[in-house]
Amino acid sequence: MAVVVRNIERPDAAVVTALGKCGVATVHEAQARTGLLATYMRPIYAGARLAAPAVTVSLPAGDNWMIHVAVEQLQRGDILVVAPTSPSTDGYFGELLATSLRSGGVVGLVLDAGVRDVRELTEMQFPVWSKAVSAQGTIKEMIGSVNVPIVCAGALVNPGDVIVVDDDGVCVVRREAAADVLDKARDRLAKEEETRARLAAGELSLDIYGMRERLAAKGLKYV
Amino acid sequence: MAVVVRNIERPDAAVVTALGKCGVATVHEAQARTGLLATYMRPIYAGARLAAPAVTVSLPAGDNWMIHVAVEQLQRGDILVVAPTSPSTDGYFGELLATSLRSGGVVGLVLDAGVRDVRELTEMQFPVWSKAVSAQGTIKEMIGSVNVPIVCAGALVNPGDVIVVDDDGVCVVRREAAADVLDKARDRLAKEEETRARLAAGELSLDIYGMRERLAAKGLKYV
Amino acid sequence: MAVVVRNIERPDAAVVTALGKCGVATVHEAQARTGLLATYMRPIYAGARLAAPAVTVSLPAGDNWMIHVAVEQLQRGDILVVAPTSPSTDGYFGELLATSLRSGGVVGLVLDAGVRDVRELTEMQFPVWSKAVSAQGTIKEMIGSVNVPIVCAGALVNPGDVIVVDDDGVCVVRREAAADVLDKARDRLAKEEETRARLAAGELSLDIYGMRERLAAKGLKYV
Amino acid sequence: MAVVVRNIERPDAAVVTALGKCGVATVHEAQARTGLLATYMRPIYAGARLAAPAVTVSLPAGDNWMIHVAVEQLQRGDILVVAPTSPSTDGYFGELLATSLRSGGVVGLVLDAGVRDVRELTEMQFPVWSKAVSAQGTIKEMIGSVNVPIVCAGALVNPGDVIVVDDDGVCVVRREAAADVLDKARDRLAKEEETRARLAAGELSLDIYGMRERLAAKGLKYV
Amino acid sequence: MAVVVRNIERPDAAVVTALGKCGVATVHEAQARTGLLATYMRPIYAGARLAAPAVTVSLPAGDNWMIHVAVEQLQRGDILVVAPTSPSTDGYFGELLATSLRSGGVVGLVLDAGVRDVRELTEMQFPVWSKAVSAQGTIKEMIGSVNVPIVCAGALVNPGDVIVVDDDGVCVVRREAAADVLDKARDRLAKEEETRARLAAGELSLDIYGMRERLAAKGLKYV
Amino acid sequence: MAVVVRNIERPDAAVVTALGKCGVATVHEAQARTGLLATYMRPIYAGARLAAPAVTVSLPAGDNWMIHVAVEQLQRGDILVVAPTSPSTDGYFGELLATSLRSGGVVGLVLDAGVRDVRELTEMQFPVWSKAVSAQGTIKEMIGSVNVPIVCAGALVNPGDVIVVDDDGVCVVRREAAADVLDKARDRLAKEEETRARLAAGELSLDIYGMRERLAAKGLKYV
Repeated sequence: MAVVVRNIERPDAAVVTALGKCGVATVHEAQARTGLLATYMRPIYAGARLAAPAVTVSLPAGDNWMIHVAVEQLQRGDILVVAPTSPSTDGYFGELLATSLRSGGVVGLVLDAGVRDVRELTEMQFPVWSKAVSAQGTIKEMIGSVNVPIVCAGALVNPGDVIVVDDDGVCVVRREAAADVLDKARDRLAKEEETRARLAAGELSLDIYGMRERLAAKGLKYV
Repeated sequence: MAVVVRNIERPDAAVVTALGKCGVATVHEAQARTGLLATYMRPIYAGARLAAPAVTVSLPAGDNWMIHVAVEQLQRGDILVVAPTSPSTDGYFGELLATSLRSGGVVGLVLDAGVRDVRELTEMQFPVWSKAVSAQGTIKEMIGSVNVPIVCAGALVNPGDVIVVDDDGVCVVRREAAADVLDKARDRLAKEEETRARLAAGELSLDIYGMRERLAAKGLKYV
Repeated sequence: MAVVVRNIERPDAAVVTALGKCGVATVHEAQARTGLLATYMRPIYAGARLAAPAVTVSLPAGDNWMIHVAVEQLQRGDILVVAPTSPSTDGYFGELLATSLRSGGVVGLVLDAGVRDVRELTEMQFPVWSKAVSAQGTIKEMIGSVNVPIVCAGALVNPGDVIVVDDDGVCVVRREAAADVLDKARDRLAKEEETRARLAAGELSLDIYGMRERLAAKGLKYV
Repeated sequence: MAVVVRNIERPDAAVVTALGKCGVATVHEAQARTGLLATYMRPIYAGARLAAPAVTVSLPAGDNWMIHVAVEQLQRGDILVVAPTSPSTDGYFGELLATSLRSGGVVGLVLDAGVRDVRELTEMQFPVWSKAVSAQGTIKEMIGSVNVPIVCAGALVNPGDVIVVDDDGVCVVRREAAADVLDKARDRLAKEEETRARLAAGELSLDIYGMRERLAAKGLKYV
Repeated sequence: MAVVVRNIERPDAAVVTALGKCGVATVHEAQARTGLLATYMRPIYAGARLAAPAVTVSLPAGDNWMIHVAVEQLQRGDILVVAPTSPSTDGYFGELLATSLRSGGVVGLVLDAGVRDVRELTEMQFPVWSKAVSAQGTIKEMIGSVNVPIVCAGALVNPGDVIVVDDDGVCVVRREAAADVLDKARDRLAKEEETRARLAAGELSLDIYGMRERLAAKGLKYV
Repeated sequence: MAVVVRNIERPDAAVVTALGKCGVATVHEAQARTGLLATYMRPIYAGARLAAPAVTVSLPAGDNWMIHVAVEQLQRGDILVVAPTSPSTDGYFGELLATSLRSGGVVGLVLDAGVRDVRELTEMQFPVWSKAVSAQGTIKEMIGSVNVPIVCAGALVNPGDVIVVDDDGVCVVRREAAADVLDKARDRLAKEEETRARLAAGELSLDIYGMRERLAAKGLKYV
């Protein structure tokens, strides 16, 4: 039951980088409003914005042993995605593990639990999205799995899926769909560019999108 | 049932501006500790502090269509106040709508739900007080109302009421009471000025307010 | 029942200062993962990091009178620790009380309730760890106690215990154990120093801690 | 600011009784999905189902004095609706107050806070909808108001509005709209009667409501 | 994206029935402490205990149209499992839909949202496990999917997986693993039978399980 | 650090029994509104009402080994009080442990975490007050302590303290104060008896307690 999957497929690196530039809200819309993790997942500091392939960890509540195991499976450019098997706010991750991940080129952490050493992590600019900040220590007694599908903060994450993160939260894109989602995200951004200019110039979205007739048909009254 | 009220009365602009300078805590106290919205309403970035007349929106959960309708009803200096009719953390508002509001001189948003594009909103310095940050997209299918009385984060807000916001949260002042509340807030600030100086000089509030006798009467013992 | 204890024993000042430099996570681990307050206790601004002896206050929900009483009992270098006797998010503390505490050399506040004037407190750099930010005013009608043992955010705090605070939260160290905990914290920091260098150089914690054999014994499979 | 309004208008008693028989879900739908209080308002025992005119109380958190004042204003058949001015789970109401209310013919309590003596209240079959069960005692120090508009669990309640309660929760109907809402609720019930028979006989709502075409138009695919 | 999968594989009926008799806690343990849905999923009445194959529904928050679509896909003995794509407590299901499901032999509902008509559902003895009770009505405007993998209350549920429910909550068993999990659950029950008798006779689990030595080795001291 | 204290002092059995008959609300008031555990502590079934001396357990989150250790330390008539050292909703206790406790005459459990087998526990009429119902299994890897002071659901509990429980929740009475608190509780009950009769006869508490004058002095206006 407890396994470490060594070889996972990763998405095209250029697609991943480009998705990171689109941002969470755009990517989420581009894939038909799916893939968002729960809104309690917040960054420990503002401003980080990126995408990366997921290496996943499933571990018991209160035990961070499998994160140590996962370090070896992470490659340069990956992001670590961790979920305990029952709810926990304990602090599974801190500055020492971040040092280890950074040394291997890992770009961030998504953790459905607590994180500690947030001052040091902020100084290092090692980005973390988590459910809580907590100094509560964990043990190293129970094994779990690395690179199996997990549910993290209410969303299914497979190893190799693209994780998009920014100040709005976390969104997951299936590996196989990444290129297609990127196309749709770029279309969306292009359209928004134009809309933004018209809105800035004072046009109303009611007019740009031609909404007035449909509103009237729905029965909206002006008094 | 679904109506847009075009003409609302707004409070005196000078009074509104002055209330913004008093801040939420002082205004809340000045009107006998009333009007505060729920403490889960937090600013997306620190430092904004203002007051403005409310244009109100009541809309269905998960549907932001009425915000587009409201844009047309907002005037320079107004603040938009939005409440869904059942609880929701979805992201009803982002950078495009903010661009539109800013273009019309609207000064901020109070939203009993989620907001997205917080990085861009912060860069624009468009202030938002909300229950959540969420990229979750909304639909444009159901109508609601603009400029009707709403309950937002536990407080009744009428169109034209003064919304006072700062890092402490959100407070609503009835339009008719605004001038009177401002007077009381200024009295309070004046008194605090004096108290502050005495406290900074090392006097105790026990002595400044003459509390020792009443504490003893209540039965407080020193051991 | 309602008493103010005037004389409390305080821990050695040098030990206290040194504990503050170790930080919350290290101190919590050094005392066998005990003493942490609930994770909902968050700083109003990032970056403060210190330790100080606790002066404790137990007061009724919605009433901050006893904080005024406590001011007189606080000494230079102390931290104020306040817990209401039933849950409350009201705003018991603001800039005037902070002015008074600062004038007496008090270094911070830990409050299992709400705080207000967070903008002013941030400008003053007066650090506060609290459950909520709220402008909701409190009354001065009911008495409580100063310098009695209290439960604050799920942890027992005795007057004179050491309170360690930073961006990770709040940890309490028994006064009698402070020197011993400091020794253990320093040992831990020394060991971490070495480990950090090895991790930064690319060694794996699996190897540094020799975990591979025990993982295999637990049944972990690599596939 | 603190007032007791002695004379309020009450809705037609027959309409009120009939609304109680319709139940919360039907009444809520009949008035266009409005008026529902927050879902955290739960009955202390299952099975009570009624409607009654509201006598409202606004009181400070942790202080139940105004409930004693309200008793005198309640008439036979009324329901008491109580909201503190800041969030609280304290126990404002127990068996003695219920004895007093029952003696005057009051039919229930809706309380956005805590209730105690739930065993005795259940034995008396005195129905209460509340946010919490809590033995935490309250004080009698601060005044508030009786029969003013209040926000209770997120909904505006005016004195004399109809409160409809059952195991699904609490719904408020404006006094002036009560007869109209009753008509719509009865229409709804009549239609449901017929639908229920068809569904019980095995017909599908897809067919009864003719939904298939619209689903196809929206793009639903069967695979 | 929005699809209805008509044909799903269902597990062996005898295995399903037998798993229902084992109960949630035993089944969860038998599959290595996995598969449990979040603890906020509670039954609307006590005493129901069963297992059934899942027909899954993914639908937008506040919209229950796809439940009507799913009715046609459910077979005698199935259970309906529903999750909105963003958090919601609205009331997606009531007595009319239950009448329809019962007419087709469907045995229950698991819903990561709100349910209404709980009094009528209890009278019908139609069991529901949900996040909330709420009369809040939903719309029929947006499509979703039936019989696709969903995340419900934090757990992945595939169509045809076995859902085990009782007063302890909800557990999901992969269809392919059902027979194996049943074997392990029965082994567990057999062992517990014997242990129960010894415990009832006054033996200590410390002795039955031979724990004393390992406790001493861990350093437990008796004083 | 991890110890089992074998000999604790227990309060007078007759006093304990009598406190149980007074009930939680009365006892809490009799000791000046102190000692109540957090309101999230709810009974798994209605109707149990008792008091008993506490045997306390402090254990790691997700690990119930120390409950097995505690069984041996419990005496006929005791109640078990358990708190994890960090927040957890896992299911630490079920029917087998209840069988063991019942065999030794233990009268109940107070657990700041989750419980499972609630159907069986209800059939056995073994009363439990807990934070959650959860089937989530726990491990037996880490030691903790028995019969040390613990913080359980926000209240300090010493071994041998009296735990009073009923449908209102849980209250703790210091062992040394038990007799005195009982006296005060009885006084209170005697007074309430008389008040109840007068209220049932239609007298108002405003008159019984002579509140009208003080209300007027506070400024209450009747309009």
